[in-house]
Amino acid sequence: MLEQNIIAKLRTITGKDGIAADDQELVVYECDAIAMHKARPLAVVFPRTTEEVSRVVKLLYDNRIPFGPRGAGTGLSSGALALGCEQSQRSVIVEMARMNRILEIDYANRRAVVQPGVINIKLSQIVAARGYHYAPDPSSQNACTIGGNVAENAGGPHCLKYGATTNHILGLEVVLPTGEIITLGGDGAETIGYDLLGAFVGSEGTFGIATKITVRLTRTPQTVITLLADFLDLNDATRAVSAIIAAGILPAALEMIDIVTINAVEDSVYAAGYPRDAAACLIVELDGLHAGLNAQAKHAAEICLQNRARSVREARDDEERKKLWAGRKGAFGALGRVSPDLFVQDAVVPRTRLPEVLAGIYEIGAKYNLRLSTVFHAGDGNLHPNINFDGRDQDEVSRVMAASKEFMELCVDAGGSITGEHGVGADKIEYMQMIFDQASLDAMLAVKDVFNPLGLCNPGKAVPAQRMCKEYRKGYDI
Amino acid sequence: MLEQNIIAKLRTITGKDGIAADDQELVVYECDAIAMHKARPLAVVFPRTTEEVSRVVKLLYDNRIPFGPRGAGTGLSSGALALGCEQSQRSVIVEMARMNRILEIDYANRRAVVQPGVINIKLSQIVAARGYHYAPDPSSQNACTIGGNVAENAGGPHCLKYGATTNHILGLEVVLPTGEIITLGGDGAETIGYDLLGAFVGSEGTFGIATKITVRLTRTPQTVITLLADFLDLNDATRAVSAIIAAGILPAALEMIDIVTINAVEDSVYAAGYPRDAAACLIVELDGLHAGLNAQAKHAAEICLQNRARSVREARDDEERKKLWAGRKGAFGALGRVSPDLFVQDAVVPRTRLPEVLAGIYEIGAKYNLRLSTVFHAGDGNLHPNINFDGRDQDEVSRVMAASKEFMELCVDAGGSITGEHGVGADKIEYMQMIFDQASLDAMLAVKDVFNPLGLCNPGKAVPAQRMCKEYRKGYDI
Repeated sequence: MLEQNIIAKLRTITGKDGIAADDQELVVYECDAIAMHKARPLAVVFPRTTEEVSRVVKLLYDNRIPFGPRGAGTGLSSGALALGCEQSQRSVIVEMARMNRILEIDYANRRAVVQPGVINIKLSQIVAARGYHYAPDPSSQNACTIGGNVAENAGGPHCLKYGATTNHILGLEVVLPTGEIITLGGDGAETIGYDLLGAFVGSEGTFGIATKITVRLTRTPQTVITLLADFLDLNDATRAVSAIIAAGILPAALEMIDIVTINAVEDSVYAAGYPRDAAACLIVELDGLHAGLNAQAKHAAEICLQNRARSVREARDDEERKKLWAGRKGAFGALGRVSPDLFVQDAVVPRTRLPEVLAGIYEIGAKYNLRLSTVFHAGDGNLHPNINFDGRDQDEVSRVMAASKEFMELCVDAGGSITGEHGVGADKIEYMQMIFDQASLDAMLAVKDVFNPLGLCNPGKAVPAQRMCKEYRKGYDI
Repeated sequence: MLEQNIIAKLRTITGKDGIAADDQELVVYECDAIAMHKARPLAVVFPRTTEEVSRVVKLLYDNRIPFGPRGAGTGLSSGALALGCEQSQRSVIVEMARMNRILEIDYANRRAVVQPGVINIKLSQIVAARGYHYAPDPSSQNACTIGGNVAENAGGPHCLKYGATTNHILGLEVVLPTGEIITLGGDGAETIGYDLLGAFVGSEGTFGIATKITVRLTRTPQTVITLLADFLDLNDATRAVSAIIAAGILPAALEMIDIVTINAVEDSVYAAGYPRDAAACLIVELDGLHAGLNAQAKHAAEICLQNRARSVREARDDEERKKLWAGRKGAFGALGRVSPDLFVQDAVVPRTRLPEVLAGIYEIGAKYNLRLSTVFHAGDGNLHPNINFDGRDQDEVSRVMAASKEFMELCVDAGGSITGEHGVGADKIEYMQMIFDQASLDAMLAVKDVFNPLGLCNPGKAVPAQRMCKEYRKGYDI
């Protein structure tokens, strides 16, 4: 049987302990953190070197078996789902977790070279003593990998000031879907030639597998001030967000948490001392050189009070700051405890449209009788409406899906987009037509064909294709 | 005759006053600001609308006539040169100067929509009263167009802190080389789908012609402090540059000017009061909220003094600041007065390698007995070695070309690259192989083929192809 044959051949490349192909082992790899959709892979391989990745990919390409990369599986758009080229087909997951070494740290030029399986926070921890960190900080940073961050162009609270993953990637070594190894970008010099590095970052694993990543290291700010402002009306909080930015203040982070989330957090191990009766809290963090930062914080606090904040308090010390952030970053975990399932949505709207869009989102939640909450990166208009539900209740599931689609339509109508940072993945691929006309989608697919000519690498993600893979069975080749 | 026929047809699209085809008129369009290479176009058309651009391009595409966009012609890499697909062939310039309207300004969401012919500084002037500006500021900003900036991914002194053009472009309307009109990116929402917007910016007119550009507006900082530090040893100045960045200070700009440039400037209308006996001056500009900025400036000044600056003075007022900048931005003009011709080079190296690379550059200049000077964006390691020469002296011209090549090799050996901000254009296309292996160049060409299938749009620029255009004469088509 072809499948058993392939598994045996993969085993000769990765070694016996470098592959999982038993059904019990594979169940862990059926989905990512969103768990709305599931697909069991044919096998999971765990390469340890670029050369192993290249040999694995070449074998799969030559045999026309679809495959896709995976990091920690913390994604929220089913980007790591093992989809085949047809509904019933199983694909191979190339799990990058074992390529987890930091290869080089160059403080003088502020860059590090890492393997894709390095856990996001680990790099920051290692360079912390020298006064540096890696800036993009997804809420899952204790678990997610830098390789996965590259695939999804991950964001995080501090990306408001520091930019998303794409702004911190200087170069990549990539195994193309044919097994060929290429280099994109460089070691810190500015990009010349066409900026294919930028196109690769955020291509959701459909352009190939990054095996070596040169990242920018960011100087850790001398001083950080973190404010917690609480509001009795959600709209006052969003107006404060706009007013802070309009005043020319660029906070390091500007996060919003609504009453449902506040109470879920306060009921959990992440309890942060958020006021349970507030309609919404804002976390406003300012960072920079010590001189002048206090004046800036005072200005931000005044703006909150002018917009009817009930109170604004400053984290007394690093411990209290960490607690405030643990609450924010643990919010999805805390919400996850409330019901068997949690659907985390992701969209972005122009900051000025936040009040009306948020109102619309709560209306949709009420219309479909759903347990809705919001917690999000308010500073850049990146919304996360979340729905607590029970996946065993088919009626509730279909209401979740209907509401999600309406959320997207609402955000798009407001001049926004269907994802701010979680990616399109398999979950939102059908929504791409809300944003792009066919000519633009065709241009994207044509570029995808350059990297991924047969479509075998991570089929069914990012950009909707007429056929999920090319007609690879009929001997079609580039 | 085909050529006259095409000119007649172009005239029906753009009107009589929308085309230049007389040899006397065409002479102006033979080269860009570098004037090292010349090529006379077949005609220059001046479209006024996207639809006209599309009709012009479609006509040329259908008749297999090469063409390329042009803005103000201030480029320094022969990117706007009217090259044909063969040596003797003449191509049509699509001059965007008349599409110079600002279409929309949206302060609340900090963006503006402009036509490509808008002069860079004009946008900043128009939004200044509301406290905004357009951040990328090439030295030619009084003349260059935003469309040209997009094509070359132009930089400027303040790009150290604020990023180059690519960081300020949110969306584009593009006429593809087939005449089709597409949209890339959006109106401010984060990029979803593949980041083709990023690939387009800096593609040097080889992917098509931008006809509408959505740019980010940047809040003008509350306070600006500008320091002038002077050094008796060039190496002390470069060490001060590294030390300032290493101290965690991110200046808005960090520029270096050597003694030859200082004296050229002081002899010109741009005289800025730079000390004529200094080996080098640094302009260190800090900006941000008023609070704390003085302390930061003091810190930067101390670092200069620790690195043996002879003196550091602060611009007393806006007038003095403008004078210091007029000197820096007028440096190329001032150098241009010294000799019949000026060759402005552009390369980038890791900041830490600046002292040794600079020493090497002066050695090369001495070896070829050339009048060398340097003026550059020191903060990001972006060098501009300039050579004053006489283009009528064939021996000197060949020494200029030989030295230029050695500059490039030196920078590449130091881990740098062959252009920091001026682009590859036609001038540096042969150097691309110093940086990229053939597999990487092939990947770029494959992406180019997606946008520009016959290669008719701006042939001979950016990425070296085996043939400059596809075999379009033999009826080859996509």
